[in-house]
Amino acid sequence: MFKEAISKSTIDMKTKLPLGYKSAGIHCGIKKSRKDLALIVSDYPATAAGVFTLNKVQAAPVLLSKRHLKECENFYAIIVNSGNANACTGERGYEDAEKMTKHTADIIGVKKEQVLVASTGVIGEPLPMEKILNGINTIKFHLADGDVKDAAEAIMTTDTFYKAESSTFIIDGKEVTISGIAKGSGMIHPNMATMLGFITTDAAIEKELLKQILKNSVDKTFNRIVVDGDTSTNDMVLVLSNAASGVVITQGSDSQKTFEAELYQLLKKLAIGIVRDGEGATKLIEVIVEGAISDQDAVKAARTIALSPLVKTAIHGEDANWGRIIAAVGYSGIEFDPAKFEIFINSIQILQKNYIVTLPNAVANQTLKGTNIQLKVKLNAGNGSANCWTCDFSEDYVKINGSYRS
Amino acid sequence: MFKEAISKSTIDMKTKLPLGYKSAGIHCGIKKSRKDLALIVSDYPATAAGVFTLNKVQAAPVLLSKRHLKECENFYAIIVNSGNANACTGERGYEDAEKMTKHTADIIGVKKEQVLVASTGVIGEPLPMEKILNGINTIKFHLADGDVKDAAEAIMTTDTFYKAESSTFIIDGKEVTISGIAKGSGMIHPNMATMLGFITTDAAIEKELLKQILKNSVDKTFNRIVVDGDTSTNDMVLVLSNAASGVVITQGSDSQKTFEAELYQLLKKLAIGIVRDGEGATKLIEVIVEGAISDQDAVKAARTIALSPLVKTAIHGEDANWGRIIAAVGYSGIEFDPAKFEIFINSIQILQKNYIVTLPNAVANQTLKGTNIQLKVKLNAGNGSANCWTCDFSEDYVKINGSYRS
Repeated sequence: MFKEAISKSTIDMKTKLPLGYKSAGIHCGIKKSRKDLALIVSDYPATAAGVFTLNKVQAAPVLLSKRHLKECENFYAIIVNSGNANACTGERGYEDAEKMTKHTADIIGVKKEQVLVASTGVIGEPLPMEKILNGINTIKFHLADGDVKDAAEAIMTTDTFYKAESSTFIIDGKEVTISGIAKGSGMIHPNMATMLGFITTDAAIEKELLKQILKNSVDKTFNRIVVDGDTSTNDMVLVLSNAASGVVITQGSDSQKTFEAELYQLLKKLAIGIVRDGEGATKLIEVIVEGAISDQDAVKAARTIALSPLVKTAIHGEDANWGRIIAAVGYSGIEFDPAKFEIFINSIQILQKNYIVTLPNAVANQTLKGTNIQLKVKLNAGNGSANCWTCDFSEDYVKINGSYRS
Repeated sequence: MFKEAISKSTIDMKTKLPLGYKSAGIHCGIKKSRKDLALIVSDYPATAAGVFTLNKVQAAPVLLSKRHLKECENFYAIIVNSGNANACTGERGYEDAEKMTKHTADIIGVKKEQVLVASTGVIGEPLPMEKILNGINTIKFHLADGDVKDAAEAIMTTDTFYKAESSTFIIDGKEVTISGIAKGSGMIHPNMATMLGFITTDAAIEKELLKQILKNSVDKTFNRIVVDGDTSTNDMVLVLSNAASGVVITQGSDSQKTFEAELYQLLKKLAIGIVRDGEGATKLIEVIVEGAISDQDAVKAARTIALSPLVKTAIHGEDANWGRIIAAVGYSGIEFDPAKFEIFINSIQILQKNYIVTLPNAVANQTLKGTNIQLKVKLNAGNGSANCWTCDFSEDYVKINGSYRS
């Protein structure tokens, strides 16, 4: 008992892999010294699904992974490099992405279409293919089951900590595990901006259902985080489902509900981790909009507030500047009556209807002292609601982005 | 001769008022010590036109000035306070704006509907009416013809210099003058964000034509400047035309063309002045997009580039990061082929088609050394073109907006 307790406390349960997966993360030489190559392998044929950036400019690995998902039914691996985005690299870039999948397929003995690929880093420079191919030769010997921490570290760019979450739960009396790793810092925006997420599960889920479940969860998590409004060329979330647990998730079943709820919670944790690590961020902000005419309007209002540099700098300066919040909703394009606006910060009401301020400025500002800010806006116009997550806007954001090449 | 030369050099020709106007700017006590009340008066009945913020939340002076423009044909004055926006102030705010026009009308002996009103500053606090009404009593004695400098200073908020431009030109053998003052710093965006502009001319222009001429010029100047994407509750550009020059501008005439060309140049100078004074700005950036499928697409692309925090921080850091520029156009929503993208900085090509980089990074970065940056993007997709102006994004922007209440 004692031994088990110790061993549990030394393993980070957040990095636990589902059954039938191995992973590794190594330094192959794209970056100066940090890990820059990650590999996740399934021992069994897995179904897969993906959600991709909506940017008109799509990096080679995005185009290739989308093609593989279309052409193939079963997948065995995801290969990822950081430090170079392989974006705006033309035909050569596409061929390089193909070489990455081919070489990975060769070392594990599958077809190249059964490998998915992702890249993140600087745009517009060719991949250092010799380093990457040598890295793929090496990474094979580092593959291990149980833990995904090295892979989580190897996909980081300006991230200051790795993001990994794992959840084990019971369906039909059997254990099912979902594991996820993510990266993303700066440039975070709804619609999948500069964000990579790789999810694995040992449940058995048919391809179309997996796609639908992934989309539902991504829409309410990764697509609800907002750092600065830029949307990148490279982002994707991939999921592999390899059936190793013996649990089958079927369309419309209770098991689907359970699985989807667990996936939502896991992606939400990863998404919040990304926001918390936003470049220069000092505060995590959840924006909640209630009482909009529709949910769609609520999403628009929440995103506009979360994107407003004036709101984000005011929160950074711990200034409960409610005028900027109303003004942001004013240009979000939705219908509402500003005189019915109410604002709550961490459940404390700072503005009542008819622009009545409930607290002296100095007291209202106190509500912004912590590092977790919940900003709730009630429009009192209908029943639509939505939330999203963002971070404050600090001087460091500018410093980091003025010098980092991405 | 010598005396005239001296006297000319001591008058700033940019603040010259047209015939038949007087102006003043004083400190009435809204701000601690800087000027905060401006008045422009026409000796003769003037036609007027305005362009207003598209924010759903419109400040009381915006609502009232729009009403007066609708209800009345001739105008005599514009009264403006800075330091308080009179926005989100409900019925009381509207009554306060009415009191400002009534009191101004009384001291100059006209009807209150013949006075236009504007405010700028903190949102959500009631106007200090006693100070303002006393200020209006006092400002009457400061009215002087010839110069608009004091008024230009009195409308400033976080501006670090006043913006005034004046132009005198010949139509039908007679001198016509246009004068303009503007304020705006931070929060600058197309569609009239936190921007005030007050234009006077001694030409005679019928109301509908004046409105059309103003809209044409504002669309290509004030509505093409982008600082941070926030759009305010208070912005307006007003023009008065009092016929004192004896020159009549008629629809479709050559005189209209001349007048419109002069107004465009004047508003462009004011707009660029606003961008140059963007909070924390160190570089003025003109973004030009050529070869889009339509002019509309070109405007979209130019604005998206100009709004991208990643592009703006890269230029601040003098990093010719062309990937961020392509990525921004990628999420602007327009159709284009990224492989046909070309980029020029201050006329030096840094990117050719097919992602071919023409200069080593260190050399390309040199093109960003100055304080005037022209960033030209050729999409090679069609004949649409557009330009807009913005500034870089510095650490100071965050410092200023984290502490200033607006």
